[in-house]
Amino acid sequence: MADQVRLGIIGIGNQGSTYARRFMKDNWVPELRLTAIADINPARIAWAKENVSSEITYFDDAISMLDSGLIDACVVSIPHYDHPRYVMECLRRGIHVMCEKPAGVYTNQVREMNMEAAKYSDVIFAMMFNQRTNCVYRKMRELIQSGKYGRIRRANWLITNWYRSQYYYDSGDWRATWAGEGGGVLLNQCPHQLDLWQWILGMPKKVQSFMHYGQWHNIEVEDDVTTFMEYEDGHTGVFITSTGDPHGSNRFEVQMDGAQLVCENDQLKLYELEQLEQDWTKGNKIPFATVPGTEIIVETDGLNPQHEGVFAAFAGAILRGEPLIAGGEEGINGLTLSNAMHLSAFLGKPVEIPFDEDLYERELRKRIATSRRKEASGTVFADTAGTY
Amino acid sequence: MADQVRLGIIGIGNQGSTYARRFMKDNWVPELRLTAIADINPARIAWAKENVSSEITYFDDAISMLDSGLIDACVVSIPHYDHPRYVMECLRRGIHVMCEKPAGVYTNQVREMNMEAAKYSDVIFAMMFNQRTNCVYRKMRELIQSGKYGRIRRANWLITNWYRSQYYYDSGDWRATWAGEGGGVLLNQCPHQLDLWQWILGMPKKVQSFMHYGQWHNIEVEDDVTTFMEYEDGHTGVFITSTGDPHGSNRFEVQMDGAQLVCENDQLKLYELEQLEQDWTKGNKIPFATVPGTEIIVETDGLNPQHEGVFAAFAGAILRGEPLIAGGEEGINGLTLSNAMHLSAFLGKPVEIPFDEDLYERELRKRIATSRRKEASGTVFADTAGTY
Repeated sequence: MADQVRLGIIGIGNQGSTYARRFMKDNWVPELRLTAIADINPARIAWAKENVSSEITYFDDAISMLDSGLIDACVVSIPHYDHPRYVMECLRRGIHVMCEKPAGVYTNQVREMNMEAAKYSDVIFAMMFNQRTNCVYRKMRELIQSGKYGRIRRANWLITNWYRSQYYYDSGDWRATWAGEGGGVLLNQCPHQLDLWQWILGMPKKVQSFMHYGQWHNIEVEDDVTTFMEYEDGHTGVFITSTGDPHGSNRFEVQMDGAQLVCENDQLKLYELEQLEQDWTKGNKIPFATVPGTEIIVETDGLNPQHEGVFAAFAGAILRGEPLIAGGEEGINGLTLSNAMHLSAFLGKPVEIPFDEDLYERELRKRIATSRRKEASGTVFADTAGTY
Repeated sequence: MADQVRLGIIGIGNQGSTYARRFMKDNWVPELRLTAIADINPARIAWAKENVSSEITYFDDAISMLDSGLIDACVVSIPHYDHPRYVMECLRRGIHVMCEKPAGVYTNQVREMNMEAAKYSDVIFAMMFNQRTNCVYRKMRELIQSGKYGRIRRANWLITNWYRSQYYYDSGDWRATWAGEGGGVLLNQCPHQLDLWQWILGMPKKVQSFMHYGQWHNIEVEDDVTTFMEYEDGHTGVFITSTGDPHGSNRFEVQMDGAQLVCENDQLKLYELEQLEQDWTKGNKIPFATVPGTEIIVETDGLNPQHEGVFAAFAGAILRGEPLIAGGEEGINGLTLSNAMHLSAFLGKPVEIPFDEDLYERELRKRIATSRRKEASGTVFADTAGTY
């Protein structure tokens, strides 16, 4: 294998353009060399020839690029609905693939993608979960999963610093529509946090979600979500998010038998108890006593390589079999949380995981059918494919 | 009227004893003079003669004290179930009364108390909501209710720094039983926060509560509560509490159209936007822009007189018609939240406020009937009366 992987990008919208420029201008991830870009929008291609490079090859459709022999690996950076379709097109051609978040819009399509991926296990399939590279989240996971602090007792993530203006929503006719994105804050802003939730805390067995659709904006999808979760062992969690809080918070707290962890303002605080509560309480004979402990600011390695780190690991996996930051098959987990939350809100009742994925797809399709993105109402998937 | 009010205390358990010693030893609230104490437990009377004063009058039952002519005002500091009964005994005798929190255990009994209080409007009736005297909560209320920052968009109170050990629960057979307290963390630890919630934010129209009973302790009542609330205008709130978090939090955040307020560690932070979001967004033409603003630590008057302040205002109301910190009739509000939360958890569904108070009383009585406080199972109310 060569010491560089030839990379293509499908879709140069906001995210794809950012990648393309970084790959060309900064010698960003040395083991990946951008050689081709596909987008069906001529204006984006013209922009890229000017702003990215005139020396790489451009395609007006993705399949031609995949069949060109010019790329070994590909980034799928297109609207959510089509992530699984193009990931599968890559896999079937032996082209290693990096999928943008979310893995898809509904778990059925992602499950199909994962089944296909299982057939091509020699092809590297990765998810762009760049927040997993953040030192504070890596450290939280390490501390929690070490077992040193016993069981989890409670988790709360208040992630409301996603304020979006009406102008943002008006800037694309696909934005914040059932037909264009398949949801609101959960599909567009929160896939990273939903992935981190399951990566750090594991999957709950039940969720009950309360959503408001277009509460703070003129949009048809959810912009305000509160979810209560229960785990198999009875502990609970709350996940709150919104794009309507004009100055929100990002505060993630985890209570354990032997510690409290609070991640806020890029800092991780640990209150470490001298004993696990269940051990300490057996010997305690003072009515109002509490478990002694001390608070520290947790030292981390300080590294937070984000997209660069995810791409570097992707190249390492292709070239040397090194581990990925996030395997492609893991994308379904956060989406399972997301879909379960939507289904719970649609039905107005708690939803157990695993949930009825066909029911979810039917409920989603009902909403797509009456989506205000009218041009998409008949041919949703073809239409969203038509934007890159 | 004299320049001192003669005060009696019914019940010298933990709280009553603390009051009694402060009134005697520190010239604590100059306008209140402790002249009598009633408790049916001879051991407590003996303790008080030794530790409080040998010069005041002791009674082995409350009614004799109320009929003695020795007191003008009275503190009702007895188990929750009997608060309404003894408040009414005071009111009917023209004795001004300060009721400990909670006002009672179920709203029906508190409603009866309030109806009785309405008949004796010349008698001062106050609730010991001492947390209302805390400068940070007073300031929060003032800022929110000023209208300067528009509507409330979201409120979250994570109040989990109530850790209680098993030894605490084992220290009284009435503790954390349906028969003895009528609930757990909501009835014993949270009445202040539930009062502050409604005092600062107003009453929601609907609650859905998720409770675990004896999850972290060997008790029969709730020690873990998550409640989702909805207000008439569609905004939401979450209230989370527990006595099982070995090192919990007290973080109260309120999002508004024009500000974010966060109260934590006895400090109030205000992020003040330059405009209300709904005004700013009309003129914004930048997709990812957010409303500009600045964060400040709010200056307060720094005063937090707690019980002393509540008693001083009580004396002022009696002597000079000055305002109370909390009128007795307001006790029903926080208890309404508490009962609605319990009813929602009992039924496993959302509960609208006002709720069916008779249904709640029936549900509570079912639990009292099988309460592990067995000696109380037949005559709950008489029995709890028998502890002071």
